Amino acid sequence: MGARQADRRKFLKGGAALAGGLTLGAVEPALGQTPAADGFIKGNEELVLYGERSRFVTSVRIPHAPGGRPSPDAYGKYFHIAAPLQDSVGTITPSSLHFVGTTRGAFIPDIDPQEHRLMIHGMVDRPLVFTMADLKRLPSETRPHFIECAGNRSRSRYKTVQETHGMTSCAEWTGVPLSLLLKEAGVKGGASWIVAEGSEEVKGASSIPMAKAMDDCLVAYGMNGEAVRPQNGFPLRLLVPGFEGIFNSKYLRRIKVVDRYYMTYNDYGHLNRRDDQVGAALGMLIGPKSVITFPSGGQQLPDRGFYEVSGLAWSGGGAIRRVEVSTDGGRRWADAEIRGTAHRMAHTRFSFQWTWDGQETELLSRCTDETGQVQPTRSQIAEFFGERADDESFRVRGMDNSIQPWRVASDGSVHNAIT
Amino acid sequence: MGARQADRRKFLKGGAALAGGLTLGAVEPALGQTPAADGFIKGNEELVLYGERSRFVTSVRIPHAPGGRPSPDAYGKYFHIAAPLQDSVGTITPSSLHFVGTTRGAFIPDIDPQEHRLMIHGMVDRPLVFTMADLKRLPSETRPHFIECAGNRSRSRYKTVQETHGMTSCAEWTGVPLSLLLKEAGVKGGASWIVAEGSEEVKGASSIPMAKAMDDCLVAYGMNGEAVRPQNGFPLRLLVPGFEGIFNSKYLRRIKVVDRYYMTYNDYGHLNRRDDQVGAALGMLIGPKSVITFPSGGQQLPDRGFYEVSGLAWSGGGAIRRVEVSTDGGRRWADAEIRGTAHRMAHTRFSFQWTWDGQETELLSRCTDETGQVQPTRSQIAEFFGERADDESFRVRGMDNSIQPWRVASDGSVHNAIT
Repeated sequence: MGARQADRRKFLKGGAALAGGLTLGAVEPALGQTPAADGFIKGNEELVLYGERSRFVTSVRIPHAPGGRPSPDAYGKYFHIAAPLQDSVGTITPSSLHFVGTTRGAFIPDIDPQEHRLMIHGMVDRPLVFTMADLKRLPSETRPHFIECAGNRSRSRYKTVQETHGMTSCAEWTGVPLSLLLKEAGVKGGASWIVAEGSEEVKGASSIPMAKAMDDCLVAYGMNGEAVRPQNGFPLRLLVPGFEGIFNSKYLRRIKVVDRYYMTYNDYGHLNRRDDQVGAALGMLIGPKSVITFPSGGQQLPDRGFYEVSGLAWSGGGAIRRVEVSTDGGRRWADAEIRGTAHRMAHTRFSFQWTWDGQETELLSRCTDETGQVQPTRSQIAEFFGERADDESFRVRGMDNSIQPWRVASDGSVHNAIT
Repeated sequence: MGARQADRRKFLKGGAALAGGLTLGAVEPALGQTPAADGFIKGNEELVLYGERSRFVTSVRIPHAPGGRPSPDAYGKYFHIAAPLQDSVGTITPSSLHFVGTTRGAFIPDIDPQEHRLMIHGMVDRPLVFTMADLKRLPSETRPHFIECAGNRSRSRYKTVQETHGMTSCAEWTGVPLSLLLKEAGVKGGASWIVAEGSEEVKGASSIPMAKAMDDCLVAYGMNGEAVRPQNGFPLRLLVPGFEGIFNSKYLRRIKVVDRYYMTYNDYGHLNRRDDQVGAALGMLIGPKSVITFPSGGQQLPDRGFYEVSGLAWSGGGAIRRVEVSTDGGRRWADAEIRGTAHRMAHTRFSFQWTWDGQETELLSRCTDETGQVQPTRSQIAEFFGERADDESFRVRGMDNSIQPWRVASDGSVHNAIT
């Protein structure tokens, strides 16, 4: 399945063709975006309704490789799909290229939003059920937030930044503050956690400390200016800014207010059972992390000279305050520029002006967030987990937010420098 | 052409089918997003590569109706395409729904970015030619900016906000500051304008004052985190923040540095010839403008009670500082909340909490930008142009940024209140 194939996708004109009556005539209108001999694209009605990207733009997602092997499951489905960060510009991930994690089931629920309901129950004064229309009448907020899979980490055998870091993305999310819904329901004394449940076939759920639930969580129906995409939780997703991806329940249908941490499907590996809200919240947070997206593994510098080194930084601890770049393998560090506004729990673009002298070298970045946390080295992460950083079997039993080194060879080729 | 049709679009599997060998077998993989009997969408490889929206989301663009009649031209093409603001959430317009203005030609140039060049010439020390790869090595900036067609205005016969205001959109743009390229070329003494030329078949161009060119213009290759879309100028578009849409040259290929304002194709109606840079720049600026997107014309309030009134505000003069809403036809005004960051020359989302008592009323919004400019009434605009606001033939010979009134009838239906 090549990249170009997806970019050459064409429309079938009308549902009738799908019923068996396919003729070439029915397909001709599908050629709207094919260039004519005069070098112009002849538009068609579909181009009016919902636009497409250029046939020359071939950036696509790839199946992520947990354990190193991208492998479809028994149903031919890929569980995890990684975003092409090497082609990213700015801070927003286009919804069509947003990473997908399907730890709770690879099948996408086919939800009619007219039929969808969100129930808030448990330790509340007034259990409530909301339709989508109900929710859209309520006060909303819009904020950029990243979501990152806890398993998003580099390995020596990964070549590109899509393979090493593609399980994070950032979108502009719009929704109702969860705190508003909880206040409307009336949280009873003694309630200290919520359990947020999606609609996947495994009926997964996440326990989230009440303090976080009442802080900045969003019950989101909007993503990058339109409805949340099916692969990202249509019609409703819980945003838990800064927490590991699994906590951002997709296809949200029930929130239960409870007085203790609930063990639920697929919590194993994501956290240990915690009764202490603060300790648990800290354990669920994404650490400060950054990666250079250009130049990155698999890319090629055409010659020596000026390049803007560019990348992304983010942290579950809040806004990115500082990003440093080293162009000599970590001996010297200098401040990169932060481009645009560094929003809290959002991808932040950084840039660094570099003139390459044509010698082999290593490029690295490290970030600091508003709490003062600094992105650790791979050795520090290894030490924390009692592993050896240079061991191929190095297996981080939690979040790995260590510094990513890219080696620029003297021929301009760029490689993952993790050994 | 119905909305659902575009949302039911399916993929043809592979180019071979297009060559004539269509069989049902070749089409079956196209059914990936069709729900199975168990209520889950069975994904396919295309869903991995580049995601799609839900089949239940039917928001689409429509042909804009200059003069009131949406009419394809002799080639069956629509010149202008309006964004569905009534469905908008947050501030970003998804690239697939971004408005399109094609005043310089409705055919989309089919440009191979490998072959594309940008030339900077005229009154410069060093004429320069850049490839796309050259440009991407240079320092870049990312900023949200709206683009609005100067003809974006309401008429009494327009029903929805898409018809009244759909010729504006906002995206996160990424590119090289134009000032950097001009400095690299070396602007000669006496140069006071640039002429920016696109690649459309009419060879249109825009004259832009040097002071603006050296200020905040971007030579943009990125839009909402991926490449600029073909309908919006792929591979390169000039962003002239806050200026009328026509100045944001698409398919940018030449910038000529000159010592006077150049009359070019399709400048008529957009501005008069101006030798005075400041006067010209002010004449090219979009005034402060706002519109309520919910509730708006054609929408239906199900019953009395609480609603969050929500809309967009923007100005060529800078950031939006204040938005006021009236829920009683303009007698009393109260401050709306600005949601998120009010970026300069960017759509800004505002919200206002309103409890509808079930009586007929009119909803209005007006904004103030950072320069203190206040959005005018329709009467003020009419007076300025020597017209009568209540005349059906009311024809604004420039930008119309007047206040938009929506009438909520006692049955909850919402209507354009311009008479």
